[in-house]
Amino acid sequence: MICLLYAHPYPDRSRANKVLLDAVLDLPGLDFRPLYDLYPDFAIDVEAEQAALTRAELIVLQHPLYWYSVPGLLKHWFDKVLALHWAYGDGGVALHGKTCLWVTTTGAHQRGYSKEGMHHRPFDDFVPPVEQTARFCGMHWAPPLIVFGGQRAGDEALRTHGQRYRAQLLALGAHERPAPPPAVEQE
Amino acid sequence: MICLLYAHPYPDRSRANKVLLDAVLDLPGLDFRPLYDLYPDFAIDVEAEQAALTRAELIVLQHPLYWYSVPGLLKHWFDKVLALHWAYGDGGVALHGKTCLWVTTTGAHQRGYSKEGMHHRPFDDFVPPVEQTARFCGMHWAPPLIVFGGQRAGDEALRTHGQRYRAQLLALGAHERPAPPPAVEQE
Repeated sequence: MICLLYAHPYPDRSRANKVLLDAVLDLPGLDFRPLYDLYPDFAIDVEAEQAALTRAELIVLQHPLYWYSVPGLLKHWFDKVLALHWAYGDGGVALHGKTCLWVTTTGAHQRGYSKEGMHHRPFDDFVPPVEQTARFCGMHWAPPLIVFGGQRAGDEALRTHGQRYRAQLLALGAHERPAPPPAVEQE
Repeated sequence: MICLLYAHPYPDRSRANKVLLDAVLDLPGLDFRPLYDLYPDFAIDVEAEQAALTRAELIVLQHPLYWYSVPGLLKHWFDKVLALHWAYGDGGVALHGKTCLWVTTTGAHQRGYSKEGMHHRPFDDFVPPVEQTARFCGMHWAPPLIVFGGQRAGDEALRTHGQRYRAQLLALGAHERPAPPPAVEQE
């Protein structure tokens, strides 16, 4: 199973994220969770979210980059769902061995992410908080898919990114892995 | 004026942050904004927040570190309050020349923030998203005040951090700077 956490505060205004979603939403075994639709009042159902994560082998975080990070609701989701004794700390092994893929779109072109660019740093400098969140929960960190200049990209370029995204999900293969068989009592 | 944005999801459980606050809350000209009390439903009053920022010369972000970053409500506050054409982009100069001070407390000791430590990276690796948010809005970035191992620190150690915090606010001097005189029409 793939758990696709989608955090776009204004999904109707999205262009890049919409093309990306269109490229993958038909994959079998994909659980699409549009967080801003599910929780417009930020009242996250922690139990439902944890159950969704438990079912999945691959956890995808997809969103436009807001202030060099995840949008507020996804950060709140981290704070609530990735709980002590569940995701980390004593007995917190629920996510161990799963894979996390970060998919994000930026307003600026890649050259904006450099010492001389408008964002003054390479994009890699903004990765550690998200990457280490996944790693601290015992997840594998897949190479992120970063779509630079999403708003201004041409349709063709966006569709190519969509194909890359789909290929990446297929390569990670999680949707094909059968769920473990139910435990059978020994006689 | 100092605008102190305090983002603690569980203020009653706080120890380190409480000692830090006790050391500075009596400073004259300090506007204390406990975001989780003000906006328990995450419905931020953007106009009120922007007005508070406009009045201040020094903007303090104080919170416990959650997942290597600011808590969800403060991230949501960034997303809503630091708006295009107000904080950045064409005409977005409202915060230019102000100073931003980041004050955060961590659960882990400093040695946890190293390649060999539980968080696998030096703390500095987690600074760029917050620092660049302030800089992109044209603010000066003061040396952050990081209190490591806050929950386990002794009372005396915490009080020392409190004194450092107070000294830092006094040194930044914003509370003493008079507000600019009202514009007077030329006759």
